[in-house]
Amino acid sequence: MKKIYITVLGLALLNGLCCTVQAQKKVAATGPIDKKVDALIAKMTLEEKVGQMTEVTSDVVSKTGGGAHELDPDKLKEAIMKYHVGSILNVTGTAYERSHWYDVISQIQKAADQDRLKIPVIYGIDAIHGVTYTVGSTLFPQEIALAATFNKSLAHKMGEITAYETRASYIPWNYSPVLDLGRSALWPRIYETLGEDPYVVKTMGAEIIKGYQGNDVGDKYHVAACMKHYLGYSFPLSGKDRTPSWIPDRYMREYFLPSFAEAVKAGAKTLMINSGEINGVPVHASKYLLTDVLRGELHFDGIAVTDWRDIQYLHDRHHIAATQKDAVMIAVNAGVDMSMVPYDYTFYTYLIELVKEGKVSMARINEAVHRILKVKYELGLFERPVGNPDDYPKFGSDEFKQASIQAANEAITLLKNNNHVLPLKKDLKILVTGPTANTMRSLDGGWSYTWQGDLSDKFAAGKNTILEAIQQKIGKDNVSYEAGAAFDSLQNIDEAVKAAKKADAIVLCLGELSYTENVGNIDDLNLPAAQTQLALELAKTGKPVILVLAEGRPRIVTDAESKSAATIMAYLSGNEGGDAIAGVLFGDVNPSGRLSITYPRYTNALVNYYRKNLENGNPDDKHGYNPLYEFGYGLSYTTFSYNNLHISKPELKDNETLTISVDVKNTGQLEGKESVLLYISQLYASIAPDTKRLRAFDKISLKPGETKTITFKITPKDLAFVNDVSKTVTEAGEFKIQLGDQTQSFNYVSAKDQPSRTGRL
Amino acid sequence: MKKIYITVLGLALLNGLCCTVQAQKKVAATGPIDKKVDALIAKMTLEEKVGQMTEVTSDVVSKTGGGAHELDPDKLKEAIMKYHVGSILNVTGTAYERSHWYDVISQIQKAADQDRLKIPVIYGIDAIHGVTYTVGSTLFPQEIALAATFNKSLAHKMGEITAYETRASYIPWNYSPVLDLGRSALWPRIYETLGEDPYVVKTMGAEIIKGYQGNDVGDKYHVAACMKHYLGYSFPLSGKDRTPSWIPDRYMREYFLPSFAEAVKAGAKTLMINSGEINGVPVHASKYLLTDVLRGELHFDGIAVTDWRDIQYLHDRHHIAATQKDAVMIAVNAGVDMSMVPYDYTFYTYLIELVKEGKVSMARINEAVHRILKVKYELGLFERPVGNPDDYPKFGSDEFKQASIQAANEAITLLKNNNHVLPLKKDLKILVTGPTANTMRSLDGGWSYTWQGDLSDKFAAGKNTILEAIQQKIGKDNVSYEAGAAFDSLQNIDEAVKAAKKADAIVLCLGELSYTENVGNIDDLNLPAAQTQLALELAKTGKPVILVLAEGRPRIVTDAESKSAATIMAYLSGNEGGDAIAGVLFGDVNPSGRLSITYPRYTNALVNYYRKNLENGNPDDKHGYNPLYEFGYGLSYTTFSYNNLHISKPELKDNETLTISVDVKNTGQLEGKESVLLYISQLYASIAPDTKRLRAFDKISLKPGETKTITFKITPKDLAFVNDVSKTVTEAGEFKIQLGDQTQSFNYVSAKDQPSRTGRL
Repeated sequence: MKKIYITVLGLALLNGLCCTVQAQKKVAATGPIDKKVDALIAKMTLEEKVGQMTEVTSDVVSKTGGGAHELDPDKLKEAIMKYHVGSILNVTGTAYERSHWYDVISQIQKAADQDRLKIPVIYGIDAIHGVTYTVGSTLFPQEIALAATFNKSLAHKMGEITAYETRASYIPWNYSPVLDLGRSALWPRIYETLGEDPYVVKTMGAEIIKGYQGNDVGDKYHVAACMKHYLGYSFPLSGKDRTPSWIPDRYMREYFLPSFAEAVKAGAKTLMINSGEINGVPVHASKYLLTDVLRGELHFDGIAVTDWRDIQYLHDRHHIAATQKDAVMIAVNAGVDMSMVPYDYTFYTYLIELVKEGKVSMARINEAVHRILKVKYELGLFERPVGNPDDYPKFGSDEFKQASIQAANEAITLLKNNNHVLPLKKDLKILVTGPTANTMRSLDGGWSYTWQGDLSDKFAAGKNTILEAIQQKIGKDNVSYEAGAAFDSLQNIDEAVKAAKKADAIVLCLGELSYTENVGNIDDLNLPAAQTQLALELAKTGKPVILVLAEGRPRIVTDAESKSAATIMAYLSGNEGGDAIAGVLFGDVNPSGRLSITYPRYTNALVNYYRKNLENGNPDDKHGYNPLYEFGYGLSYTTFSYNNLHISKPELKDNETLTISVDVKNTGQLEGKESVLLYISQLYASIAPDTKRLRAFDKISLKPGETKTITFKITPKDLAFVNDVSKTVTEAGEFKIQLGDQTQSFNYVSAKDQPSRTGRL
Repeated sequence: MKKIYITVLGLALLNGLCCTVQAQKKVAATGPIDKKVDALIAKMTLEEKVGQMTEVTSDVVSKTGGGAHELDPDKLKEAIMKYHVGSILNVTGTAYERSHWYDVISQIQKAADQDRLKIPVIYGIDAIHGVTYTVGSTLFPQEIALAATFNKSLAHKMGEITAYETRASYIPWNYSPVLDLGRSALWPRIYETLGEDPYVVKTMGAEIIKGYQGNDVGDKYHVAACMKHYLGYSFPLSGKDRTPSWIPDRYMREYFLPSFAEAVKAGAKTLMINSGEINGVPVHASKYLLTDVLRGELHFDGIAVTDWRDIQYLHDRHHIAATQKDAVMIAVNAGVDMSMVPYDYTFYTYLIELVKEGKVSMARINEAVHRILKVKYELGLFERPVGNPDDYPKFGSDEFKQASIQAANEAITLLKNNNHVLPLKKDLKILVTGPTANTMRSLDGGWSYTWQGDLSDKFAAGKNTILEAIQQKIGKDNVSYEAGAAFDSLQNIDEAVKAAKKADAIVLCLGELSYTENVGNIDDLNLPAAQTQLALELAKTGKPVILVLAEGRPRIVTDAESKSAATIMAYLSGNEGGDAIAGVLFGDVNPSGRLSITYPRYTNALVNYYRKNLENGNPDDKHGYNPLYEFGYGLSYTTFSYNNLHISKPELKDNETLTISVDVKNTGQLEGKESVLLYISQLYASIAPDTKRLRAFDKISLKPGETKTITFKITPKDLAFVNDVSKTVTEAGEFKIQLGDQTQSFNYVSAKDQPSRTGRL
C-alpha cells in the first residue's frame, strides 16, 4: 500500500501587505519497513491502534505495595490483552541488576506475544548520563559538564556507551538527549542541557544521538534516542520548572529550534514534548509546533510522545481543555502520537470514542501508529524483543570507565588560579570541607540510580567522592575533613576553622545536592547563606582557599568566590568526578574545560553571553553586562597563544565558503588541551544582532612548544539569523571574527536577503 | 485641500490554512484646524517641514557653561531661522521660578515669530507628578502610589492640577503619563507606572489624560498629554532600563496595548516611543507598531515623538542601521513624526537628503508635519504662544495641596498590623530611624526638581519628611531620631539600638533613594544588607517595629519584615507623603491604599498576580506562587464585610450586559474607604487563562455600620483575551467572579468566537 500524505508548511510570511502560505507535498518513505508496517496496520482494529498510542508506567502493571517492578501478571495481561498498550515507561524504584531487567522485560514481551497481533511493547527509560537505573553501569558527567569539554568525540562516546549499556539492560528506548537551550540559570534542569549556546547544543546533541543510534539502531548495541523537550521548555519566565515561558516565534526559531532540526537530520527516532506553555499555548496543544513546524518544516518522521501526564494536564493545569476528553482530542489532533498517560486507560477510552464520533480522523490514528510501529521494526523488536544477556561483556567495563574519566577530566573548568596556587603539591596538609566534599549526590545529580539521585552514596559507594579521591591521591594522613556546613545550615563551622588553621591549604567544596524537575525549584539563586558564611570564615584564616563548585546550576557565589585563591567549576561531573577534581587539584590532570554557561555575578543580572548590544550597558552604567565568568571561559596549567588569524578572502559571496585559520601554540611547559572557539558577530542587521555568537569550535591537544593550525569553513548560511517575518536569512554586511585574542573582519556581499523592515514582533 | 490617506491594518489572521489581510481606509479629519494646517503646509519648504519634525534640547539654544536655560540668542536664532526647529525639550538644570520660565518661553516664541512662517515652537517637559521643574509647584505621589488609591477621581485631579501648573509655567506639552505596564519589580521606572494591572493602568491612565487635556486642550489650563512609552518598554528581560524585552505579539496586545488604546480614545494628543527593543526590533524602527497598529488599529492621529536620541541609537546601540542616515530613514518610514535628536541638526540634514533622494516620501513628511502643526493649533500656540502670568492664581495653592494630601493619604498601604499595634497613641515615645526617615528624596523620587530628584531636600525644604511629620504630629519631645543606616551601609547602628531601648515603639523607615532610568538599575532586588541588618538588630530589642517602606519598587524585605509588628508601604508618596505616613501611624488617617503591584517574597520569584494556573505550583511544590503580599492587598483600621453578591443572570449572551452587585458594610468603629475590586476568571479557554483578572473597581467611603451596594456592569467584551491568531476574543465558557470573600459563577454562551486551535506562538 502506497501511502501519501500532505503536510502544510505553516510558515506564513507576512511581508508588508502580502501574505504567502507555502504548501509542501511530501511523499512518505516507502521502504521495506513501511510496507511491513502498512500490512500490519491493515490488520489492526481501532482498539489495537489506539493501544499502540498508549503508554503507561511500569507501576500500572506491577503489584501494589510490592517492590517496584514486581510485575503483576493480571495487570500486565489487562494492559496487553484488554488495552493493547504499545509502550511502558520506567518509573519509581531504584537501580536494578541486569538480571532483574531481563526478567521484567522478558515478562512484558512474553505477555505482548500473547496478544492477537503479537506486537512487542517498547519500554522507555531515562538513561540520561549512562543507564542510570542499572546497577554497575557507567555513569557519565551530566550534559552541562559534557558540553564544557567542547569535545564532540566525547559526546559521541557517551552516547555509544550508554546505548550499549541500555541494550545490555534489554531496553531499546532512551529518553535522551535533552536538547533544550540552557538559558535560565534558575531552571532546575539546566544541568541536563548542553549549556546556553545554540551551536554547542545542536552540535554536541547530534553527536550524542549518533552515538545512541549508531549506523543501525536495530543492532544489539544501539537504542532509539528521544530528543527532548520539544520546544522551548528551558526558559520559563519565573525560572521554575514547567511554568509559562514567553518566547517570540523569531527567537524560538533562532535559538531553540536548531538543536532539534539538527537532531532530525542526525536521524533521531523519537521526540518528547515540552510540558510547559509558550505564550499561553501548551506545546502539547500546538498544531503549529507539533505538525506545521516539526513535520512540515523539519520533516521529522518519528514518534512524538508526550511527557508525564501532559494530555491530562491540558485540562488540570493548563486549563485549555474544558474536559479530559477534549484534552485528548486537542493533543492528538495537534500531532501527538503517543500519550504517556501514565496511570490509567482514560486516554485509550476517550480516543476510541473521539474517532467514532469523527472528532479525530482515522488518518491521524494511522499516521501515529505507523510511526510507532516503524520504530519498533527499526529497533528489531519484532525479531528480538529481549536481548541476549551474554552479548554485553563490556557492560560496566574499565574501557567504558575510561571514557567517563576522560569526559570528567575535560569538563572540570578552572576559573581562577591566583599566583599559580594550583596544582597543589602532594605533600601539603589539606583540609577538605564543605557540604559537597563527601557525597556522590553532588557529583552525579538527579537521574542517578533514582529520579532525584538521592541514593548515589549507596549505589556508587565504590566511587570516590571529592574527599575520598583526594585521600587516595595524597594519602589519608595529609587530609583532614570537616563538613563545616550542610547545604542550607551551618554545621561544626568552628571545627572547620580550627582544622583550617592547621592546614596548608583548604579545598572548600560548595554547591548543591541532587535534584531534578520541580523538586529542584528555587526562589533565590544565591548559594544558601550558610555556605557563604563558611567560605568567609575560612578565608579569614589566611590559608589559601581552593573553591570547588559541585552544582547543577551556577548558584551565585560572588562573595565567597571573591576570597578564593583558586576556583574550580566541577558541575555534576558524574561517577568519576571526584577523581577528576583531585586530578586537577594536584596536577595529574591539566584542566581544559570551558564554561558551557555564563556564571552570573548577581541574582538579578542574568544575561547570556550572546546578548544584544543594548545589554552591554551604557559606558556610564554600573549595572551593565558583568558576569562573574563568561561562557567559554576556562584556564589551563599551560598557556596558549593565537597567531596568524587568516581568512581566505575579504569578501564572501553567495554560495562561497570562507576559510578561517589560526595558529594555536602551546607556549607553556605542560601538555594541554585547548578548546578553540570561533565567534563571529554581525555589526549591523535588520534585527538587532547579537554582540557575539559562537559559530564553530574544535578541541586540540598540544605538547609544550607545539603549534597547530586550526581551520574552519564558514558559509553564509552559518551566519544566519531569523528576521522580522520569521525567515532565516543572512544579510549582507560587515562581520567580525574573534579567535582567542585575534580579530579580523570580512564583508558578506549579497543581494539575496534584503533587510525586511516590517518591524513585526 | 482635502487629504485622504490609506492605512493598512497589519493584523494578519493566521487561522489554519488561510491568511486574511484586512485593509482599512480612513479619511483624515477635515475640521477647521486641518484646513488651517493644510494651508500652512502648502506654503512650507521641505526645510521648514523637516524643521518642524526636529526637536532639540534647551541646552542647544543655551549658553555653554552658563546656568541652564540661559538662552544664547545666536544659538536660538540658528535653531529657528536656519533649522526651523519645531520643538524644544527641557533638560538639565533644576526647578526654576515661574518668572524664569516666562522669560525662557517668551524668548523662544519671540524668536519663532521672526521666522518666515512664524510657527510657534512647542516646548515639552517631564511634569510627571506635578510640574516638577517649577519652584513651588504641587508635587503629587508618583503614579505607582496614585494607582494604589484605586481612586479615579484623584487621578483626574492630579492631571488637572498638573496641567494648570504646567501652563502656569508657560509650557503646553507634558511628557506624561507613563502608561507602561509595571510588570518587572526590578525595572527602575516601575514607580512611574500605574502598577502591574492592565485594567488599572488603562483606567487610571485615561483619567490622568482627561485631567491634563480637559475639554479644550487649547484653553489656559490644559496641556497636551504624551502617553508613553509606546510600546512594551516596561518589561526588559534583565530588568535593566532600555534593554531588550521578549514579548509575544499576543501578550503585547492583551497586557501592554490596552492602556494606549484607551488613551487614544481619551483623546491623547501625543505619544512617546519606547527606547527599547522587543524581540530584537527597536520600536523606533517598527512600522508594525508605529503605523500598522498605532494608526491602522488604534486610529491615533497625534504626534509620535522619539525618546532621547533614539534615532541615533538605532545605529549606535541597537545596531539595526548601518549608518546614522539609514537610522533616520528607517525611523521616519516606520512612522516617527518628531525626532528628539537632541543635540545637533544631523536629523534635519539627513532627512532633507533622504527626501531629495526619494528614500522618504513627501507624503510621509506632510503627514508628520500635519500632526505636529495640528497639535500646535489645538494648543492655541498660534494665538497665544506664551501665557499670561496673572491667569494662574491657584498655582501652588492650598486647594491644590489638599488634592495632593488626599492622594497621599489614600495611597499609603497598610500591609500588616499585628495586634492592632497601629494606630500609635500620640503620647508614646517614638524612635524614628532608617535611611528614608529624614529625606524628601525617598518621598518624591526621581523627576522631582531635577532628573534624578537629588535636590528635593533643598526645593521641598518646606515639606515634611517622615521624621518632621511625626515630630509635628506628636511633639519633638516624644521623638528621638537616629539614622541607624545609610542606604547601603551601616551608620551609628549602636546609637539606634540604644535609642530603641528607651522608646515605646520604633518607626523604621527603609527603602530607596531617588533615581530614574538607567541610573536606577540594580543587580539585586534585595534591600541592601545594611538596612536588613538594622531591622534585625532593632527587632532584638523587643520593642514593636513599625516598618515604613519608602521606595520606588518593591525591594525584597522578607527577613526584615518578618520581625515587624506593622508594615506600611508608602511607595513614593510625594511632597505630602511624610504627613500622610504620620497620619496613618497615629490614626488621623484611616489607610485605604491597596498594593498596585505584587510585593515579591524572593529575588527570583517574581510573578504577577494575574498569573497562569501553571504558576500556582504543584500542590507539593514549596516554590509555587507565594508573594509576600499580593496585588490589591491592603488593610484598614476599620473592617468591611461583603454580602449578597448578586448577578443579574446565570447565563450571559452576546450583546448582553451582566450586572453584578454586592453589599459592602463597614463593620468596624471608624469611618473608612474601601477599594472594591472585581476579579473575574475564565476557567478554561483556548489560550491558558489567567488565574485571576481585575475587570472593574470602585472606591467608596463608609461610616461605621453603613452599607452600600456596589454595582458593576460587565459585557462579554470586558472578558476578552487575545487568542493564538492575535485576535481579541471572548470564548464561551464558565467564569468565576470574586468580590471580597464572595464568589459566584456564570456562563458566557456564545457561538461567536470559536476556539482557534492553530497553536501559533
